[in-house]
Amino acid sequence: MGRKRSKRQQKAGLPPGSAVYVGQPREGGMQIRAFAYDAKGVVEHEHPEPADVRALVAPNRVVWLDADGVHDAELVSELCELFGVHSLALEDILNTATRPKLDLFEGDIVLVAADMVRVCDDDIVSEHVSIVLGPGFVLSFQEGRSGDLFDPLRSRIRAGNGRVRAMGPDYLAHALLDAIVDGYFGVVERMEEGIDRAEAEAIDERTTEFPKRIYGLKSELTNLRQSVVPLREVLARLLKGESRLIGRGVHPYLRDLSDHVMQVLDMVDSGRERLNGVLELHLAVQSHRMNDVMRVLTVVSTVFIPMSWLAGVYGMNFDDMPELHLRFGYFGAMGVMVGMAGGMLAWFRYRKWL
Amino acid sequence: MGRKRSKRQQKAGLPPGSAVYVGQPREGGMQIRAFAYDAKGVVEHEHPEPADVRALVAPNRVVWLDADGVHDAELVSELCELFGVHSLALEDILNTATRPKLDLFEGDIVLVAADMVRVCDDDIVSEHVSIVLGPGFVLSFQEGRSGDLFDPLRSRIRAGNGRVRAMGPDYLAHALLDAIVDGYFGVVERMEEGIDRAEAEAIDERTTEFPKRIYGLKSELTNLRQSVVPLREVLARLLKGESRLIGRGVHPYLRDLSDHVMQVLDMVDSGRERLNGVLELHLAVQSHRMNDVMRVLTVVSTVFIPMSWLAGVYGMNFDDMPELHLRFGYFGAMGVMVGMAGGMLAWFRYRKWL
Amino acid sequence: MGRKRSKRQQKAGLPPGSAVYVGQPREGGMQIRAFAYDAKGVVEHEHPEPADVRALVAPNRVVWLDADGVHDAELVSELCELFGVHSLALEDILNTATRPKLDLFEGDIVLVAADMVRVCDDDIVSEHVSIVLGPGFVLSFQEGRSGDLFDPLRSRIRAGNGRVRAMGPDYLAHALLDAIVDGYFGVVERMEEGIDRAEAEAIDERTTEFPKRIYGLKSELTNLRQSVVPLREVLARLLKGESRLIGRGVHPYLRDLSDHVMQVLDMVDSGRERLNGVLELHLAVQSHRMNDVMRVLTVVSTVFIPMSWLAGVYGMNFDDMPELHLRFGYFGAMGVMVGMAGGMLAWFRYRKWL
Amino acid sequence: MGRKRSKRQQKAGLPPGSAVYVGQPREGGMQIRAFAYDAKGVVEHEHPEPADVRALVAPNRVVWLDADGVHDAELVSELCELFGVHSLALEDILNTATRPKLDLFEGDIVLVAADMVRVCDDDIVSEHVSIVLGPGFVLSFQEGRSGDLFDPLRSRIRAGNGRVRAMGPDYLAHALLDAIVDGYFGVVERMEEGIDRAEAEAIDERTTEFPKRIYGLKSELTNLRQSVVPLREVLARLLKGESRLIGRGVHPYLRDLSDHVMQVLDMVDSGRERLNGVLELHLAVQSHRMNDVMRVLTVVSTVFIPMSWLAGVYGMNFDDMPELHLRFGYFGAMGVMVGMAGGMLAWFRYRKWL
Amino acid sequence: MGRKRSKRQQKAGLPPGSAVYVGQPREGGMQIRAFAYDAKGVVEHEHPEPADVRALVAPNRVVWLDADGVHDAELVSELCELFGVHSLALEDILNTATRPKLDLFEGDIVLVAADMVRVCDDDIVSEHVSIVLGPGFVLSFQEGRSGDLFDPLRSRIRAGNGRVRAMGPDYLAHALLDAIVDGYFGVVERMEEGIDRAEAEAIDERTTEFPKRIYGLKSELTNLRQSVVPLREVLARLLKGESRLIGRGVHPYLRDLSDHVMQVLDMVDSGRERLNGVLELHLAVQSHRMNDVMRVLTVVSTVFIPMSWLAGVYGMNFDDMPELHLRFGYFGAMGVMVGMAGGMLAWFRYRKWL
Repeated sequence: MGRKRSKRQQKAGLPPGSAVYVGQPREGGMQIRAFAYDAKGVVEHEHPEPADVRALVAPNRVVWLDADGVHDAELVSELCELFGVHSLALEDILNTATRPKLDLFEGDIVLVAADMVRVCDDDIVSEHVSIVLGPGFVLSFQEGRSGDLFDPLRSRIRAGNGRVRAMGPDYLAHALLDAIVDGYFGVVERMEEGIDRAEAEAIDERTTEFPKRIYGLKSELTNLRQSVVPLREVLARLLKGESRLIGRGVHPYLRDLSDHVMQVLDMVDSGRERLNGVLELHLAVQSHRMNDVMRVLTVVSTVFIPMSWLAGVYGMNFDDMPELHLRFGYFGAMGVMVGMAGGMLAWFRYRKWL
Repeated sequence: MGRKRSKRQQKAGLPPGSAVYVGQPREGGMQIRAFAYDAKGVVEHEHPEPADVRALVAPNRVVWLDADGVHDAELVSELCELFGVHSLALEDILNTATRPKLDLFEGDIVLVAADMVRVCDDDIVSEHVSIVLGPGFVLSFQEGRSGDLFDPLRSRIRAGNGRVRAMGPDYLAHALLDAIVDGYFGVVERMEEGIDRAEAEAIDERTTEFPKRIYGLKSELTNLRQSVVPLREVLARLLKGESRLIGRGVHPYLRDLSDHVMQVLDMVDSGRERLNGVLELHLAVQSHRMNDVMRVLTVVSTVFIPMSWLAGVYGMNFDDMPELHLRFGYFGAMGVMVGMAGGMLAWFRYRKWL
Repeated sequence: MGRKRSKRQQKAGLPPGSAVYVGQPREGGMQIRAFAYDAKGVVEHEHPEPADVRALVAPNRVVWLDADGVHDAELVSELCELFGVHSLALEDILNTATRPKLDLFEGDIVLVAADMVRVCDDDIVSEHVSIVLGPGFVLSFQEGRSGDLFDPLRSRIRAGNGRVRAMGPDYLAHALLDAIVDGYFGVVERMEEGIDRAEAEAIDERTTEFPKRIYGLKSELTNLRQSVVPLREVLARLLKGESRLIGRGVHPYLRDLSDHVMQVLDMVDSGRERLNGVLELHLAVQSHRMNDVMRVLTVVSTVFIPMSWLAGVYGMNFDDMPELHLRFGYFGAMGVMVGMAGGMLAWFRYRKWL
Repeated sequence: MGRKRSKRQQKAGLPPGSAVYVGQPREGGMQIRAFAYDAKGVVEHEHPEPADVRALVAPNRVVWLDADGVHDAELVSELCELFGVHSLALEDILNTATRPKLDLFEGDIVLVAADMVRVCDDDIVSEHVSIVLGPGFVLSFQEGRSGDLFDPLRSRIRAGNGRVRAMGPDYLAHALLDAIVDGYFGVVERMEEGIDRAEAEAIDERTTEFPKRIYGLKSELTNLRQSVVPLREVLARLLKGESRLIGRGVHPYLRDLSDHVMQVLDMVDSGRERLNGVLELHLAVQSHRMNDVMRVLTVVSTVFIPMSWLAGVYGMNFDDMPELHLRFGYFGAMGVMVGMAGGMLAWFRYRKWL
Repeated sequence: MGRKRSKRQQKAGLPPGSAVYVGQPREGGMQIRAFAYDAKGVVEHEHPEPADVRALVAPNRVVWLDADGVHDAELVSELCELFGVHSLALEDILNTATRPKLDLFEGDIVLVAADMVRVCDDDIVSEHVSIVLGPGFVLSFQEGRSGDLFDPLRSRIRAGNGRVRAMGPDYLAHALLDAIVDGYFGVVERMEEGIDRAEAEAIDERTTEFPKRIYGLKSELTNLRQSVVPLREVLARLLKGESRLIGRGVHPYLRDLSDHVMQVLDMVDSGRERLNGVLELHLAVQSHRMNDVMRVLTVVSTVFIPMSWLAGVYGMNFDDMPELHLRFGYFGAMGVMVGMAGGMLAWFRYRKWL
């Protein structure tokens, strides 16, 4: 998971609301697609003119402007101006380091910023998504580096199955958030598999790679948590009815979504707790092993060191060492050594070291 | 305790409210049983037709549809439709990974999802239970892998003892939750026995199995906690009167149940704290033991290593080593060695290492 | 402190409100005593008939039924029925594992469950106490294994000193709780003495008994905390005026009691913090000591091992070892050894290991 | 900082509100001084009769009874009775173990209990202070072991500078608390100096005194925190307007005082955090050092032990050891030894142990 | 980051509201600059007379008195008096150790105290800033040791770009806070770079410098956190509408600022968590390494020590040692040694130490 570094610093000194793109430089233009649908039909435009999209807005029809990439600050500014989006909201859309949040502006405009985190080619990718909900329209902006989670939703709109075509822009905004939250499940399940693996190996693994892996998994969970926690608050505020654009009919769906967010958080928190437990277990096992190693060293050393000393003594070359000339001196010395060793071993057994 | 893995991932991209079974694949059909009772009598149907059950609903009578297994998504959908259950509730019933929660829907329908955790053949088994409370009826769905905790309640209904026959569907829903919470006590008491055992062995146990066991017990407590904590909130919301179906007469029983849930949580929390304390104690004792081992090694090594060196010196073969030819050279050397050892031991005693 | 094990398990499957004694089996009957008093006089009955006690209740008079032991479920049921106590309250009285709590029932009946923890023969004893406050009467039930804390209160009632005779049953209930909380101070002060002792010995103590003692003290504090924390909530709810039986005149006394409970909690919490600090200190000192031991071992070993090797070299029996025949070979070899030792020691000094 | 031990135990069994002195026994009588002042003038009495003080109370005049020592329970009782102070307040004044708190009684009497903690002769001294605010008067009682923090305030009253003479008894009560809180700054700044010192020495200090010092500082901070935390609540309740005696004009001063209390708490909390960090740092450095020591021991041992063995082999006295008689046997053996040592060292270098 | 030491102690005993400078002594006078602007134009005065500044205040015009340095207590007092600032606010302005906070005074005066923390010449510098918002004017006081963060704002006022000239003093106060919060981003991003570096080196770094660096980074984060946390509360209170001077038009900007503060806090908190993880990782790796070292020592020692003993035995000089005269005694002894070594190694392999 590439940690997203805020480079707000580059904006230091600019007045608030400045339309400056903050994020990784990207090549190519933005991909814009517009949907206009009601229960009866759907119209889809690839790369439409901004003004044409604005003109599509009509009562009982939902317009979804689906933008991929926010690095063309001018184009985004133009779109925001057309749809009456406040300059502070524009700033948040362009700043890919914005924290997930909900903002309400005049004209009933609602801005939801979120992080789209998903597994992509065995890697965890996070990108910034802004959803603007206004009367009759939804604008969605994503950093859009490589594919996205909204494709099933687009298909549902085109095919007209599911509830989305029958309902308003509030349901569409919900559906976008729902797709994002669905992505979290994929990420968190992949992390859980990693934790399962780490758990299974905590006892036998001995390389320094192991704590590193634990640390990596913990960092990923922390990052995901930071994306998910503010979303819980966003949904709570929407459910409190802060925006007039959210109809009562969408509330059960938002509550359901809120439950999913809670479930992701539960999974993240229990994952963190498990990781702490796994590391604790790993270190406790390490300490046991160290103890075992030390015990063997101590037993062998303390048994043989005195014996070696005695052998050394009788290897001395003094002229006058009476024991050397005794009849059974050698066997006596060996007997003393065996006795010392046996005494030591008995004492170790008594101390329960053997 | 088989950790329940959410496999929501298989649903990614589907619209919310999709009726898809999420859980472990099971063979065989669902077991359905219906009770209809009032204070005077009780009728019980095995494997009834869904429509027949619906027809049983009448004023002053309680209908309990008691389903074992939720893997037949079609049958569950049909039942839910007959009883006017919202499609989001249906989705939660079919998803065995749903977090315990309370949901209110139109038509006064209340959905309570909970985890039935119990000791079964010396193993801890967790399965998902959904309780739907509506006007005049209760639907209960369990994953139902092997027996369940509701049998005493069924007997009470059949026999007409206890309060259950005299009261409404709200009391029945309470009684189902009460049976589930009773199961928690069995689980938590079994865990406490495990902790008692671990506590008794924390000092003497030295294998790496010990931290593993502590870790296992901790994981079980964490899992149980995740099932119990949301239930506390569910009961608090029921007691706040969020649902019109819960009569004032049931409130003392719900309060009592809430106290039991608090007691389980207390026991879980104190169990976790004790486990932390036990591991801490175990590691502190390990560290003491390591110190002891090191001390013995150090004392023996530092006493004998200089003595061995001296023996080595007088074992050298130089032509001219005057001491070798002294009258009491050998005894002098032995005396020096004993002096060195004595000095070392005195110093160790002074340092309080002996 | 004998940990109290809930054996609710034996009740699994019974309907809520069942009158079953849950606790340690006891021999002999219950001890019942009844007081009826007003400002002018007091009547005391030993082992009265339940119905006679009920008949004593009258306006402007306080009846206190003071029961020692709750193992006679039938007798307790009869008493509760006479005084109009709800079956759920009866269940809590009989269940000695009930968590401290406050319950309000119809007929203005208030149930307060608490744990009476006290020092008894140098041991900490905990028993369950239930206090039922009704219009004009107070029932108190204790497990009553060996003496109790209510004796000074009984004397005050008999002698008519203090405020108790002049006030109503609410003050009596307060006085019972006050006696229980007074007992906590004794327990917590005894624990503090234990912590003081442990603090003083944290540096010098080296046996594995020490962490065990810390663990024991911590467990005792945790157990006491679990008895005291719910009591704080009980008092807060009484002070919020949840019960009509608690007159305004008793509020200052309840507030005072609440302050005492807070003070006990403060003492418990600071005790826990101190214990953590003591263990931390103990382990840090252990680690220092280990370092010292290792340093000595390392210094002695690294000084003598190379010297021993050199001695070994010149003890080899090769035919042709020119140094052996040098004029001052022996002294040269000794000089080299001393030089090696000196160099090593200088390096150790440079590394600040000496 | 002499830890204050509650000896409430000695009061066990007494009814609440008993006028018994709880604290360290003291010799000599109490020191009483009375001030009566308004904007125009001030009268001061040393050792006045209690009744005379009471008679000083008049509209638009502030009477401050400033008592040093509370060990004369009778005198304090008499004073409290004269000023209409509730017996529960009296009990708290006499009990030097009372937790800091605010209590409101009938007759608009306010009791504030606090701990006066200050640096005194390089030692931290804590004593109990009670401030009773009533209509037109303030009573202050301190344990008063050695000097106090109120002297500057007395001077200001006598000299008539500052705001105190122009304002009412509520301002006087504030000024007393302000003096107490000012004392906390001195204490906490002294502790910070101790932490600064410990921080500077955490790397190089190796004696077991170091963790002991950390533990001592931590205990002092914990003790101070226990005195300050309840005071925050006391001020919050005064600012909520719970007492009618606190005029609006004093609110800015109380808010200011509350900010100071918050600042002390911030300092205490950051001190605790720093101490934890210092100990962590110290232990991490210890562990590094241990590693270094072990590495040296291992390198020296593993290099020389095989060499010594080889020397020992060629020191054996077998009749037939062909190598001994080789032409360059000795030099060959030395070469093998050097090779073994070189190989070992190369391997250590490869493992990055050197 | 030079830790700011409160030296409130020097004020102990003074009445609240005393105008005394508390901070590091500074040379030279204060730098004062005044701006008076409206949408049409701007007037700027360097070193104006205080009274002249006061005279600039007029309806529909914003006066900003921008003071650099607060060490001239007399001048600050004079300014505050002219603008009707309460003496308690004056005290907070002069005390550079004041905690960040919001204070409301009569006359709609708002005092915001904050810490301006920024990177300056590769060092982190913190200075105290006070912002006084009154009707038609803003006073800002900074310790002003070396340059500041307000320059871009001054330029925007002079040039008339951005929104600042078109709006009132409330927007100006917001813009000052915005500049301060922008500075936090620079600091926190610099810290994150330090953490990134530490993370990359946690495995390979072995000097005692490493934990010291971690400790240093942690202290910096703690210090920054203490500056930022109270600011969150300040903004929350402004948004709750506590001051009448804050117009509705400024609310979106304050909300935006509040989001930025939350983002800084998120970054600080995740930085702390990462640092804990990095230290944990570092220590776990250390422990692994220690284990490795011990294992090598143990293997080499236990393999060679018995072999050395055997060599010592056959180096003894007893007269009668039959093995010495055997035909293949030497090779037999060598064989026994190799066998012992092989057996040890096999056992180590079996224990998985090799």
